[in-house]
Amino acid sequence: MLDIFFNPKSIAVFGASRSLDKPGRVLLRNLIHGEFGGEVYPVNPNIKELDGLRVYTAKNVPKSDLGIFVIPADKVSGALDEAGPRLKSALILSGGFGESGRTDLDAALLKVAKKHNIRIFGPNCLGLMNTHKNLNVTFLPASRLPTPPIGDVSILSQSGATIASVLDWAGEVKLGISKVASYGNQLDVSDYEILDYFMKDKETKVIGFYVEGLKDGKELIRVARAGKKPVIVLKAGKTSAGIKAAKSHTGALAGNYKVFEGVVTQLGWGMAQGPEEFLLALKARSIWKKKVHRVGIITCGGGFGVMASDGVEALDMKIAKLSEETVSGLSEKFPERVSVANPIDLTGDATPEMFAISMEALIKDDEVDGIIVVILMQLPRLNSEIVDVLQGFAEEDKPIVIVSPPGAYASGINSLFDKLPLVSSPEKAAAVLSVLE
Amino acid sequence: MLDIFFNPKSIAVFGASRSLDKPGRVLLRNLIHGEFGGEVYPVNPNIKELDGLRVYTAKNVPKSDLGIFVIPADKVSGALDEAGPRLKSALILSGGFGESGRTDLDAALLKVAKKHNIRIFGPNCLGLMNTHKNLNVTFLPASRLPTPPIGDVSILSQSGATIASVLDWAGEVKLGISKVASYGNQLDVSDYEILDYFMKDKETKVIGFYVEGLKDGKELIRVARAGKKPVIVLKAGKTSAGIKAAKSHTGALAGNYKVFEGVVTQLGWGMAQGPEEFLLALKARSIWKKKVHRVGIITCGGGFGVMASDGVEALDMKIAKLSEETVSGLSEKFPERVSVANPIDLTGDATPEMFAISMEALIKDDEVDGIIVVILMQLPRLNSEIVDVLQGFAEEDKPIVIVSPPGAYASGINSLFDKLPLVSSPEKAAAVLSVLE
Repeated sequence: MLDIFFNPKSIAVFGASRSLDKPGRVLLRNLIHGEFGGEVYPVNPNIKELDGLRVYTAKNVPKSDLGIFVIPADKVSGALDEAGPRLKSALILSGGFGESGRTDLDAALLKVAKKHNIRIFGPNCLGLMNTHKNLNVTFLPASRLPTPPIGDVSILSQSGATIASVLDWAGEVKLGISKVASYGNQLDVSDYEILDYFMKDKETKVIGFYVEGLKDGKELIRVARAGKKPVIVLKAGKTSAGIKAAKSHTGALAGNYKVFEGVVTQLGWGMAQGPEEFLLALKARSIWKKKVHRVGIITCGGGFGVMASDGVEALDMKIAKLSEETVSGLSEKFPERVSVANPIDLTGDATPEMFAISMEALIKDDEVDGIIVVILMQLPRLNSEIVDVLQGFAEEDKPIVIVSPPGAYASGINSLFDKLPLVSSPEKAAAVLSVLE
Repeated sequence: MLDIFFNPKSIAVFGASRSLDKPGRVLLRNLIHGEFGGEVYPVNPNIKELDGLRVYTAKNVPKSDLGIFVIPADKVSGALDEAGPRLKSALILSGGFGESGRTDLDAALLKVAKKHNIRIFGPNCLGLMNTHKNLNVTFLPASRLPTPPIGDVSILSQSGATIASVLDWAGEVKLGISKVASYGNQLDVSDYEILDYFMKDKETKVIGFYVEGLKDGKELIRVARAGKKPVIVLKAGKTSAGIKAAKSHTGALAGNYKVFEGVVTQLGWGMAQGPEEFLLALKARSIWKKKVHRVGIITCGGGFGVMASDGVEALDMKIAKLSEETVSGLSEKFPERVSVANPIDLTGDATPEMFAISMEALIKDDEVDGIIVVILMQLPRLNSEIVDVLQGFAEEDKPIVIVSPPGAYASGINSLFDKLPLVSSPEKAAAVLSVLE
């Protein structure tokens, strides 16, 4: 049972150090400053006190749900053996095991873990997060990687640096996160076990999965079938060049991408083409359940409407044929210069109210599954009211993606969108909708 | 000769108004506050003075190189006829001509223009810019669309809203702009004439072209062949859905995209897939002349290196096989954990110095045409020094694209990169390099 890793009530930090820049100390301070509610026991035989806490040795550390090891690889199994009787689980962040050719250290670690009946997470990983419990056990300073906002999306990733960057980015796009697992070498706890845990976790609604290769594809498929939550995949190692690079990175046998793609399609998972699409598709999926085939587009710039249309068709979706009611209703309300086809082009005189009217019509129109809205904040009659207007539709049951390119005035407005996914480019909006399998 | 439009010494503004939010007044103030060095004559029969300037009527306005018309469509040819003897050229921003079915107004306008031997730019367009002359004749307030930084990239676009958004974005990515032409309906001055002008303009090194459809493909090809400057195209209307939308937007016959693509390839132009790629490829092309086939990748996160490799291969470029000298040189300098293949993976302990050493090696290596550098600012040993280190290589003759995703700490650092193109995602870096035909 992996719950002990994500919901520990007490944590021992092996490798807590005097130096503020050492990973063990950074992790300790992330726990303390992140207001983790449980007990924290720093472990270091050479220190008595750190950050106002008593420091223990491996031999006298109190009983702990989770032991975190940030000490040199060749010291890990010794320390685990000493503290073993008082630990329920172990997260090994240190690298220098099998991935560096030291399979002897892997064997020693597994032996000690078995002796004390302890599950091992890692080694060679970034760590874990559970935002609902103020749990941030990673060794990157919070100034570099703040804990992302609380939410219901959980992400698993073999790669530590990738997940660090993706989580940082998640904060920028206001993606609410529940749990994070960087699982590294999978010496014991495996990708499919974590996926299974997320599938059963009540605080997880949507799952994000960064994949280079899989430990056991069959187990993964079994677990994915049993659980039924939506999963969005970001796959690295799609081409022969990428597969070669992945092999050198995590030793992953990235295998045949087409086979992997087939499995993903079979499971009904979404497949993102890059990290931004991954994050925004997760955000959209955490808001809406629907799959999108027929897209409605509202724009105030014709060119961006054209590019959005290109994106929709290129990704095998369709420009919705608006219902007669929508067309006649909007034609009555709007001046002649407004093109009430799809895209609806409100032109350069567009106002927030015109967007509101158009949105209402598309939300009602049964011919439309999802909506792309292009706002160009250079236009003089648009202002920050557009944010409230559009976010007012976030609760409706149709996926919406906002397109608003960055700019001197625009970027400030863009940063106000917290409830809707926002992209800079029209073709990206189509990409986000297309991932919502 | 179009030079009179881009280098006028005196400008008459027809439609200068008391209301601060009227387009004519906005344009007048853009000229005044933008410190345009020439004479400016506001024209409005009902006002005596505006912004400290004497206001004229169409009949008594002084001799002007350029007359700008921001008055209702049905009043334009009358005003032009009255002022005609004292105008050398006319820029018509007003819409409501042929694009709204009023071909009678087109005919009247052309007749008056011919009578006074005046070239017409527009109508139905955003206007012009020449940053080298502090010339910003557009009707969007500078608070919404600041004049972009001075540089040597000139952009032409039929669509006004698209170019407004692209120019605003250009400021965000620090793309230096020389001249901008939003040409609208092309009643007289045509896309290929503007292209020809940019081809011959000494302050233009690289040309950006937003295209929905062409006025005269043959003329364009002739002009493009004669001039020899690099051109990057952003084409909207690639799919049947996009072509339909383009037709409704600018009335452009977007035609067969494959045919257009063939022409572009034949001309050796680069083709961007979206506005961001367009801007960054223009930036890269304005710095470096080289085409990139064999790519070197430096990363501090394996996963992002894998994704960059995927991007390179997917876009028909190659992961460079590094020279033996590079490999042995770097292997000597770096600890064992650093993977000195391509991608060079400096791992999570990467320092700015390690990036400097790797960059020097790839710049020297004849097997490498261009470089993708991934920096993940979550890593504790990276700091703002990385900006100086990497920008130190901007003067070398190999294209470089930085990948740095946004983040709490990262975004501040990212904004410091003014000399190198920077993207958020690895696959986008490959895309920018691939556009450098």
